Amino acid sequence: MKPTGLVLLAAAALAVAPVAAHADDAALTPLQVPAKTLPVPTADISPGMQKFIAAPLNPDWNDLWKTGEETRAYADKQAAGVMKNVPGLLERMHVTSTPGTMGGVKVYTLTPATIPPENADKVLIHVHGGCYVLFPGEAGTPEGIMMAGFGHYKVISVDYRMPPEAYFPAAVDDAVDVYKEVLKTTPAKNVAFFGTSAGGALAIEMVLRAREKGLPVPGAIAPGTPMSDVTKTGDSFYTNEKVDNILVSRDGFCDAATVVYAKGHDLKDPLLSPVYGDMHGFPPAILTTGTRDLLLSNTVRVHRNLRRAGVAAELEVFEGQSHAQYQFDDRLPETKEAFGEIAMFFGEHLGH
Amino acid sequence: MKPTGLVLLAAAALAVAPVAAHADDAALTPLQVPAKTLPVPTADISPGMQKFIAAPLNPDWNDLWKTGEETRAYADKQAAGVMKNVPGLLERMHVTSTPGTMGGVKVYTLTPATIPPENADKVLIHVHGGCYVLFPGEAGTPEGIMMAGFGHYKVISVDYRMPPEAYFPAAVDDAVDVYKEVLKTTPAKNVAFFGTSAGGALAIEMVLRAREKGLPVPGAIAPGTPMSDVTKTGDSFYTNEKVDNILVSRDGFCDAATVVYAKGHDLKDPLLSPVYGDMHGFPPAILTTGTRDLLLSNTVRVHRNLRRAGVAAELEVFEGQSHAQYQFDDRLPETKEAFGEIAMFFGEHLGH
Repeated sequence: MKPTGLVLLAAAALAVAPVAAHADDAALTPLQVPAKTLPVPTADISPGMQKFIAAPLNPDWNDLWKTGEETRAYADKQAAGVMKNVPGLLERMHVTSTPGTMGGVKVYTLTPATIPPENADKVLIHVHGGCYVLFPGEAGTPEGIMMAGFGHYKVISVDYRMPPEAYFPAAVDDAVDVYKEVLKTTPAKNVAFFGTSAGGALAIEMVLRAREKGLPVPGAIAPGTPMSDVTKTGDSFYTNEKVDNILVSRDGFCDAATVVYAKGHDLKDPLLSPVYGDMHGFPPAILTTGTRDLLLSNTVRVHRNLRRAGVAAELEVFEGQSHAQYQFDDRLPETKEAFGEIAMFFGEHLGH
Repeated sequence: MKPTGLVLLAAAALAVAPVAAHADDAALTPLQVPAKTLPVPTADISPGMQKFIAAPLNPDWNDLWKTGEETRAYADKQAAGVMKNVPGLLERMHVTSTPGTMGGVKVYTLTPATIPPENADKVLIHVHGGCYVLFPGEAGTPEGIMMAGFGHYKVISVDYRMPPEAYFPAAVDDAVDVYKEVLKTTPAKNVAFFGTSAGGALAIEMVLRAREKGLPVPGAIAPGTPMSDVTKTGDSFYTNEKVDNILVSRDGFCDAATVVYAKGHDLKDPLLSPVYGDMHGFPPAILTTGTRDLLLSNTVRVHRNLRRAGVAAELEVFEGQSHAQYQFDDRLPETKEAFGEIAMFFGEHLGH
């Protein structure tokens, strides 16, 4: 019978009282979705990115670490692999990396070969991703190197303490200590925070924590696919489960690692799930995600909450990409595009 | 063995040569996704919108119309249902609707009770959705009414000809004829095009067609979840198949209807699949979609193509929503929010 369907179709173009009335009676019944086959999308996607999208599910997605010692053992082994690629990346990006400390926190200062005059008085603070437990030391710097290289900004990458050395709120506190030190020489309006995944969450958490400590908010932030909700809330935890080939599932390694970092602390605390933070008064923000990203929902929820709070916030969503794939290879056009968008956004908003 | 997974995890934070090398050898193997159960998302979603999200799949999704007579019979029956709700909508929105013709094309002029001085010299042209075959006559106006009411702009809603009365390119030509008429009294920079679904595609196609005819581009456009690619290309045609409860599938009624409208014309023509149009020189654009939208990919592809062409383009993605649900009920906060974003965008960009 057509009339039933009519109502739904009609709904697509207007406010339909009968639909609303009908909906009022409906329970919130879950949707059953059949098994499906997803071809690798190719339209408007570079061949290199197509191959990342075509990669099989991360075979370690269900490694559920339980202690800081376990996460650190994995992190150290992984970091050794990452470090093999850092020299080549620094060379391609024409960036130099200098280790040091700021406010008692270990950092890497990433300096591009050329800094245009309008960027000379700006400082970007980078907080790396890795579920709050991965990428210790210089292994945490690649995203910062790309930002410095593509954006031609000076970047300070925070080597925040991680389990088992330290637990919540060490990461955000270390990052805010670095910010406090930066503020001694650079006005807040000339500083931006950025990072991806846990780093995306940290970029938001830093604003919340800075405010708690009476510090000014920075001039802009760029949270990339932020782990903004670690309470397993967000529709794409379900819709993109086993579609995202990096994180794979809400029940995978990354949430388990965050539980290790949280060490019993309430996961709904805005310093762990910043989507629950009050975003009024936040600085301009640019968010980045992909249509297959397990954290698509938790990126758009932050975007919408920022907009609802009246904040200038932009959203970039890449076709077909899973979690954080926009920063997997500096040689792909999508990577240059993603960092280019962020750099342009910082150019528009910093200093004002 | 952890080392294999390490490589993929490492990729999440840097440019990883070994991964790229490995990926070069991989074929573009489709991904098999198991059946799943999707709970209705509730976080950051109003109770009314939760109910739309919880609605079962549109039972008519696989009605595959073959002729203009079939589509019109359905459209007329549906329009009668829609019309029952138009008076209440006009009243709630404080908008008056006046039928007329412009440039020989039937239109409805939608005038809000109050128009602020800064909007008094602006005109918005509305092109309704409905797969190029639905919502004839005043049944096509509800989105225009909401824009007039929420945005406080004068809106001209185009009642473009549809099958079986006329086929491709009647819709875009009628809309451009109205634009041409509007230009006699209003400078292009003070005019915006907007619409959803087929109307979202038409808002883009109008720019392409206007340019072909030597007309200036308008001051801004707002394509809502545009049917920007009717060649069945776009990742969310697969990822959101049977997740979107309105369109449901790329093999459903809406693409079938578009084939009726195209009447044998090449579906890859940018006047049918505007994602393939040259977007250099386009006016500022704001796009709207939802995470469960079957056309999520075809919205973000347009957004990215606009950005790649250097156009000021913004993207709004609503958590959990299927196709066009942001305009289902004027009484929901998400509806007010979606139209509010568009109105604010027009306010920033029109007149410059």
